[in-house]
Amino acid sequence: MNIEKIRAAARRLDGHAVRTPLLNAPLLDAEAGRRVFVKAECLQKTGSFKYRGGRSAVSALDPETRAQGVIAFSSGNHAQGVALAARELGAPAVIVMPSDAPALKIANTKALGAEVVLYDRAKEDRAEIGARLSGERGLTLIKPFDEPEVIAGQGTTGLEIAAQARAAGVEEGEVLVCCGGGGLTSGIALALEAEAPGLRPRPVEPEGFDDVARSLATGAIQSNDRLTGSLCDAIITQSPGEITFPIMQRLCGPGIVVTDEEALRAMAVAFTRLKVVLEPGGAVALAAALYHAEDKRDIIVVASGGNVDAPVYRDALARFA
Amino acid sequence: MNIEKIRAAARRLDGHAVRTPLLNAPLLDAEAGRRVFVKAECLQKTGSFKYRGGRSAVSALDPETRAQGVIAFSSGNHAQGVALAARELGAPAVIVMPSDAPALKIANTKALGAEVVLYDRAKEDRAEIGARLSGERGLTLIKPFDEPEVIAGQGTTGLEIAAQARAAGVEEGEVLVCCGGGGLTSGIALALEAEAPGLRPRPVEPEGFDDVARSLATGAIQSNDRLTGSLCDAIITQSPGEITFPIMQRLCGPGIVVTDEEALRAMAVAFTRLKVVLEPGGAVALAAALYHAEDKRDIIVVASGGNVDAPVYRDALARFA
Repeated sequence: MNIEKIRAAARRLDGHAVRTPLLNAPLLDAEAGRRVFVKAECLQKTGSFKYRGGRSAVSALDPETRAQGVIAFSSGNHAQGVALAARELGAPAVIVMPSDAPALKIANTKALGAEVVLYDRAKEDRAEIGARLSGERGLTLIKPFDEPEVIAGQGTTGLEIAAQARAAGVEEGEVLVCCGGGGLTSGIALALEAEAPGLRPRPVEPEGFDDVARSLATGAIQSNDRLTGSLCDAIITQSPGEITFPIMQRLCGPGIVVTDEEALRAMAVAFTRLKVVLEPGGAVALAAALYHAEDKRDIIVVASGGNVDAPVYRDALARFA
Repeated sequence: MNIEKIRAAARRLDGHAVRTPLLNAPLLDAEAGRRVFVKAECLQKTGSFKYRGGRSAVSALDPETRAQGVIAFSSGNHAQGVALAARELGAPAVIVMPSDAPALKIANTKALGAEVVLYDRAKEDRAEIGARLSGERGLTLIKPFDEPEVIAGQGTTGLEIAAQARAAGVEEGEVLVCCGGGGLTSGIALALEAEAPGLRPRPVEPEGFDDVARSLATGAIQSNDRLTGSLCDAIITQSPGEITFPIMQRLCGPGIVVTDEEALRAMAVAFTRLKVVLEPGGAVALAAALYHAEDKRDIIVVASGGNVDAPVYRDALARFA
C-alpha cells in the first residue's frame, strides 16, 4: 500500500467522485474558539466516503473479472457505495445483508441496482453464503476496509484535504477522522504524509468501541467486546485491519474517544452552522474538535457520512439545536 | 447592469465566496424521474447566497467610502451576508432590524461583528432611522436586491452553474431559482445568457406571494397584498425591483408557484437524498422540480439558503422524511 496507489485511484475517480468542499463558518469558529474546517464527505455520492473506495476497487478490476460481478457484506454505507460504483461501471453487484436490516437500507441498495441477498443472523453464516455465491458466479469480494484499492479510494479524500488546507492557509495541525476499521484514516494518513506532512491525522471513535485507540496505545491490534449499542453504527468494527493498523501506527497521533451525546451535539452544530446533515458516526470527528480540544490551533475534521434516519436526527435537534 | 459587472464581482469574490457544489444523487433522480442538479448555496458562507451580493457590494466601494461603513435593513440572510462581508473587509456595519426579530438572528448578526439597531415596527419608520444614521455617520446603504453590485454578486452563482452544468453534460434546459425581489434570479439570468445560453432561468415563489410570476405574466410590476403568512419568509418581498424586473422579463421563463407544504416536502427530500439543510424559502426551486415537472429533461435548481429554525425543520422531517 503506497501513495502511488492513491494517486492512481484519484485518476480513476476523477469526474465521478464529488470533490467535496472543505466547509468553514465564522460562527462555528467562534463556538469552537479556533478555526475549524470540515471536509464534508456527507455530500459524497451515496452520502458517505464509502463510494470512493467502492469505485476505486471496482474500477481496478480487469474488465473480465469486473464483468462477472462483485459482492460485499454490508447493511450500510459500504453497501451503497459498492452498489452505485458497480452500476456505473456495468458490473453486477450482490450485497449480502442481514434480514433484520432496516427496510429503507435494503430498498436503497436495490434502487442502486444491486441484488440483495438476505441471511438470518441467528442461523446462517454470511461468510459461507458469500463463499458459495462467489464460487458459483465468480464474484469478487470487495472488503470494507482492509483492501489496498479500497484504502486507495478513501485516500483520495486526503489528497483533496491537502490541497484545500493549503488554499485555506493551514499547513500544520491535526486532521481528525471518524474511524471504524481504518480504511479512511489510513488512506488519508498516506496522502497527507506525501502531500501535507505538517498535518497529522488522528482517529476518532465512539466510547466503548475504541479498538483503534487502544490498538495504537498498546501497539497491538485490540478488539471491541461488542458490536452493538452505539448510535455510531457506521463506524463500529471488530478491530483495525492488518493493512490499516500498521499505517495508522506509523502515521497517526493518539486516538480520541467521544460519547454518543457529543456526537449528537456535533450533529446539531453542523445543522446550525454548516447546513450539512451528519449521521452520528460521521459527526464524531467534529465532536472531538468541539469538545476535546487540546489546543487552539486551526483544525480539520472529516465529516464522513450523513445517512441518518430522520427520528435520530430530529432527536439530536430537539435536544441540542 | 451587464455581464462585465458579474465577471468583475467574480474576481473580487474569488478565494472568499465558497464555490458551492452542484449536487446530484441517483436516488433523487429516480424519485424525480429525471436528472436533478442542485446548486447548494446553503453551503455558502452565512448559509445563503446573500453573502455573494454583500461581499460584491462592499468590496466595490472606494476605500474611503467603505471605511465610513455600510448599513442594511434586514432581519434575515441579507443582514448576515452584509455583516460578514463588512467585517472581512474592515468596514463598520450597521444592521437595522425590527425589535421583534428572533433573538437568535439578532445574536448571530452581532456575532458577525455588526452593530444592530432595533426599531419598533409599529411606531417607527425604518427608512427614517436609516437616513438619519447614514447622514450622521456617512454610511452607505446596501440594498437587498435592486442594486447593480448586489445583482453582480448573486450573478456569480450563475457563472458557476454554467461551468458546472457543462461539466455534467447539461447544455440545455431550465434553471429554477428561488425568487424574492429578483436579485439572484436576474444575476443568474445575465450570467447564463452570456455563458450557457441553452439554460433558461425560471423564478419560483411561494403560493400567495407570487409577485414576480404575476409581473412576468402581465408585463408590469405587481405587488403582494401582504408580506407575512408564509413559511418561506426569506423570499417574501413587496415586488420585483426596477432593475431586476426588466432583466427577468427579457431572459426568464414563466414563474412557478409552490405551496408551503411542497417546500417542506422538498426539505425532507434534500435531507434524505442530498444531506444538505434547506430553509423553506431555499427549497421552493427543488419543490418545483419535484412536484411541478412539465417534462423529463435534466433540470438544475438553486437551493438558495439553509437558515431554518430547528422546530420548523423537525416538523418537515416528522411529516415528510
